[in-house]
Amino acid sequence: MDLHILDHRLRVTSISKSGLEQYTHPLIKLIFLRNRTRSEGLLTQTQHYLIRCKFFSLTETPENYTVVLDEEGFKELQPSEHLQVEGSTWLPLNVVSNGNASSSSQAVGVTKIAKSVIAPLAEQHVSVFMLSTYQTDFILVREKDLAVVVETLAEEFNVFREEGGESVPVHSQDACNGLQRNGREVPQATVHPVLIPENHFCVMSLDPDTLPAIATTLIDVLFYSNRSKEDASVDQDMEYIVFFSFSLIDGYISLVMDTEAQRQFPTDLLFTSSSGELWRMVRIGGQPLGFDECGIVAQISQPLADSDISAYYISTFSFDHALVPEEDLASVTEMLQAQRMSS
Amino acid sequence: MDLHILDHRLRVTSISKSGLEQYTHPLIKLIFLRNRTRSEGLLTQTQHYLIRCKFFSLTETPENYTVVLDEEGFKELQPSEHLQVEGSTWLPLNVVSNGNASSSSQAVGVTKIAKSVIAPLAEQHVSVFMLSTYQTDFILVREKDLAVVVETLAEEFNVFREEGGESVPVHSQDACNGLQRNGREVPQATVHPVLIPENHFCVMSLDPDTLPAIATTLIDVLFYSNRSKEDASVDQDMEYIVFFSFSLIDGYISLVMDTEAQRQFPTDLLFTSSSGELWRMVRIGGQPLGFDECGIVAQISQPLADSDISAYYISTFSFDHALVPEEDLASVTEMLQAQRMSS
Repeated sequence: MDLHILDHRLRVTSISKSGLEQYTHPLIKLIFLRNRTRSEGLLTQTQHYLIRCKFFSLTETPENYTVVLDEEGFKELQPSEHLQVEGSTWLPLNVVSNGNASSSSQAVGVTKIAKSVIAPLAEQHVSVFMLSTYQTDFILVREKDLAVVVETLAEEFNVFREEGGESVPVHSQDACNGLQRNGREVPQATVHPVLIPENHFCVMSLDPDTLPAIATTLIDVLFYSNRSKEDASVDQDMEYIVFFSFSLIDGYISLVMDTEAQRQFPTDLLFTSSSGELWRMVRIGGQPLGFDECGIVAQISQPLADSDISAYYISTFSFDHALVPEEDLASVTEMLQAQRMSS
Repeated sequence: MDLHILDHRLRVTSISKSGLEQYTHPLIKLIFLRNRTRSEGLLTQTQHYLIRCKFFSLTETPENYTVVLDEEGFKELQPSEHLQVEGSTWLPLNVVSNGNASSSSQAVGVTKIAKSVIAPLAEQHVSVFMLSTYQTDFILVREKDLAVVVETLAEEFNVFREEGGESVPVHSQDACNGLQRNGREVPQATVHPVLIPENHFCVMSLDPDTLPAIATTLIDVLFYSNRSKEDASVDQDMEYIVFFSFSLIDGYISLVMDTEAQRQFPTDLLFTSSSGELWRMVRIGGQPLGFDECGIVAQISQPLADSDISAYYISTFSFDHALVPEEDLASVTEMLQAQRMSS
């Protein structure tokens, strides 16, 4: 299998609930007004303005809005008290199955890469930030960890670095010589509390050409839902969680929303996988997880892989979120309970 | 003919060019998200949110954005250094031709009401703020001037006050007794310099149900045109003027834009009057006009009425703008020159 280090340098940021209003202007630009060209002025030159941001993801949770975007997009966000920025540059990795997949698994999402990517990186104490989309799963790693990442994953993958549209093979000795390898044990990470809200989620996509057709609905849901932390705290046990994720990455749109939100969109434009399954959320973390702990994704994804249960996984600024099929929820709950009993 | 005092209490405001970004959130709400109802939360009650603003107008000029809106809408605009608010409450008047129109004029717009409304109000030193739309012409007067307005116009009109959907006849003696009437001379107002930019304008409308279909284009033009005063000053003589007006009043949409902007919109959704004529602008005022001078509209509209030339008229926070048919521009220019020679 191939592992691609994509040609995006990413920042992971968070906009506070009360600060969203002042970021409406840049966010709408990043979502809707990319790659548009137009002429201005009767007598003046044609003016092109291109939003060159090619990696954009916005996820609403009860706490805040997590925005992951490349440096071009990041320039659009003015610093303010409402914007928190994780200090590192992150690079997205992507596994490309090139036909001779060794796994017979039918599972999708993070489950497919649990043993080959997630576990080895956790063993090397590399923090990852996961972003599953309708199309694929992005594993974000810190740029400073790249040498370790390449060294670690070169055992199982042909590693390529995307550079200006070309895939350039990367050899682990290029990246890092004499890496001190740890043992093959996943570190004994803290076992975090989990929460399983009642909402049912869909993972959907949309033809980018039809994005304008859902613009007002999407703007409404993203910017005017008025679902503040105060509202969420009414539901202390979080039976219902506020969660909505939109991403536009290399021209592909992915949406993760619950069935309540889905009802607001025209039924004919959004599409889901043929099975049309509904997903349940396992939210990881009683307290904000931070960015330095490693092994969090591995802790969830390894047992899922053992049971061959599909899972999407979306990290946000404060918490992690796994989505598992409704019909597998009972076994996932059981597995999580066993994990917590033994820890 | 009937004159209706509409059931809207309006504020006239201005948002600075550099301040638009921070007002994007409320403005998009006012334009696109009115009267929407939706349910929120799996287990929670259905939550309705209605934007009750029924009178909204946004006009971009090189100087600023003029926003005229009712008190419900005005609540959405947070005070800031970028928001200027004219101190008065304004009421919109509207002339309704009830079949037995005394005028044989074929002209449209402010020309139709020049002699019956504009001139008499100017004679009484009542300041007016004009807002022509695709559908009709609104004459905004200060609430404190209402008694004088009713007294003045009751001679020619049956005056009605709209109250909760009902039209209630207003008798001038109800409004004001013993009004000291001035003579029938239009006061000798300052003759302001005028500017005639090269752009050609269209006055258009749109089915409100298709507003979502042009949302991204409209958002682009309104909020991302980046046409700052700095850009405009490149063109010192203002051969090309930045001017775009959008209004949504009692469910009717009106758009005034130049042919450059028009090209960005889908051709099949916006409609113009059957004649599809193009309009040229006469911009009035070398210095900002303020709100207290009266007779400015009269000065332009009276000679137009004498020549039976149609005209739309849009007042903004700083300047006034008349739109006249392309084919009448020569005679309008001549008329304006004569006016300036004689003053």
